[in-house]
Amino acid sequence: MLNTFEKFLQDYNYNSQGSVNDAVIYATADGGKRVRPMLLLALLSDYGINIEKGLSAALAIELIHSYSLVHDDLPAMDNDDYRRGKLSTHKQFGEDIAILAGDALLTEAFAIIASDIANYPEEKIKLVQALAKYSGIGGMIYGQQLDLAGESKALLLDDVKEINVYKTSNLIMFALSAAAIIANADQDIEKLLVIAKDLGLAFQIQDDILDVTKTFEEIGKYASDEDNDKSTYVKLIGLEASKASVAELFENIYNVLNTLDLKSNNLKELIVNIENRQK
Amino acid sequence: MLNTFEKFLQDYNYNSQGSVNDAVIYATADGGKRVRPMLLLALLSDYGINIEKGLSAALAIELIHSYSLVHDDLPAMDNDDYRRGKLSTHKQFGEDIAILAGDALLTEAFAIIASDIANYPEEKIKLVQALAKYSGIGGMIYGQQLDLAGESKALLLDDVKEINVYKTSNLIMFALSAAAIIANADQDIEKLLVIAKDLGLAFQIQDDILDVTKTFEEIGKYASDEDNDKSTYVKLIGLEASKASVAELFENIYNVLNTLDLKSNNLKELIVNIENRQK
Repeated sequence: MLNTFEKFLQDYNYNSQGSVNDAVIYATADGGKRVRPMLLLALLSDYGINIEKGLSAALAIELIHSYSLVHDDLPAMDNDDYRRGKLSTHKQFGEDIAILAGDALLTEAFAIIASDIANYPEEKIKLVQALAKYSGIGGMIYGQQLDLAGESKALLLDDVKEINVYKTSNLIMFALSAAAIIANADQDIEKLLVIAKDLGLAFQIQDDILDVTKTFEEIGKYASDEDNDKSTYVKLIGLEASKASVAELFENIYNVLNTLDLKSNNLKELIVNIENRQK
Repeated sequence: MLNTFEKFLQDYNYNSQGSVNDAVIYATADGGKRVRPMLLLALLSDYGINIEKGLSAALAIELIHSYSLVHDDLPAMDNDDYRRGKLSTHKQFGEDIAILAGDALLTEAFAIIASDIANYPEEKIKLVQALAKYSGIGGMIYGQQLDLAGESKALLLDDVKEINVYKTSNLIMFALSAAAIIANADQDIEKLLVIAKDLGLAFQIQDDILDVTKTFEEIGKYASDEDNDKSTYVKLIGLEASKASVAELFENIYNVLNTLDLKSNNLKELIVNIENRQK
């Protein structure tokens, strides 16, 4: 499944040339865990639907994720020089090209969904709506805003949770609802949003834990949150309590997941892998 | 028509709050000529279609135009402190919020089209495709890239033309094709693209002319292109020849426009106003 997606991503032609084209390929080329697209495709296959029908939406979400990292790494934002073990996009291509590359990735995400011949217009419009909702000003971008506002400020645990839900859970909400939209399983979306919310929270707490327990060589980036003196789960409740929160969230996720009527366990296996990840 | 659009824009609710929400409202609130949405609505009305069906696409294009200005004004790009006679978005809200506000405007443009209840899914998908095409990596963004690459470099007239077609004509191409898509007049799109190309070129040459003949008070921004030592039409062929080019482009535009079977002359009147603009 990952190979199919990687091939689809590598073969994708932006029909452009020059530095922005080079930068979008650089920003999406390698190193990522492709967690969000895999969640979408795993659930789609559990619904018994050919994953070909989900490749466009899966690529769209990866492009949205990539654009958010490119813009997030900019000096005016988190100011990260490294990403996934290599120079961040603006360090490699310059800030101007990085800004344009982020814009290009964002725009192309919608182009990919709209141009997909494997789905009907009605489904595609639902996908465009969902992608804009969960990645936009009331979703992921709102999370970025909360995150910026919360820097160098003492936050409560609920504040950190809210940031993580918007910043991380929202794109997972798109991933899982997109699979349900494509599979015509709209009745499951409410439960999937619960899973997505908890999974995003768990994922982010895991990142906080990894940030304090791993070195640059192991996770491929410096722990900028630490440098920025940002409030994290680990700082607020400690390492052990953070690990316990992660375990509890995954238990909730499996409980909800077990109530869904699915034909296979690909999503569950993927979530188990996420639970056990070491980077 | 402009009042209807302004009301639609002012009433639009982003369903968010905080600095990014404030910044997107700031960036779109006032001062703009709304040229692109007006072109769309004028042509739509000339097809005999109620302009209500075009308001979403018109707002979408204005949001795309606004996002491009917000990002274009950033220090890493054109570094403009003023826009439309007031502080540019990053000077007012900070660079980080301006980057996010641009991203939010871009994303919301697609949300607006997808959520429009006045059009069918088939039309909306065509609109999403067209918007992504003309504003994305093979359209407006490609123009920005060419523009950046051409700064402080001696360009030929054809280079400047190419930049202007991508940077300015492309959004007008969306405006006019969007009207044709909504009116089911796809057979006119080829001609409309010719009009859009020439109109974008003419508009940009007019800007170059105004930049050297008007002061800050009159046009509401400093002539940053001049400061940046950028190649412009006026520098390359002189003021009189530039004016002659503008006149010739408008003549071509009217010739093609006259071959279309339209029920009224709103688009033509709007284009005449553009031809005669003094700012």
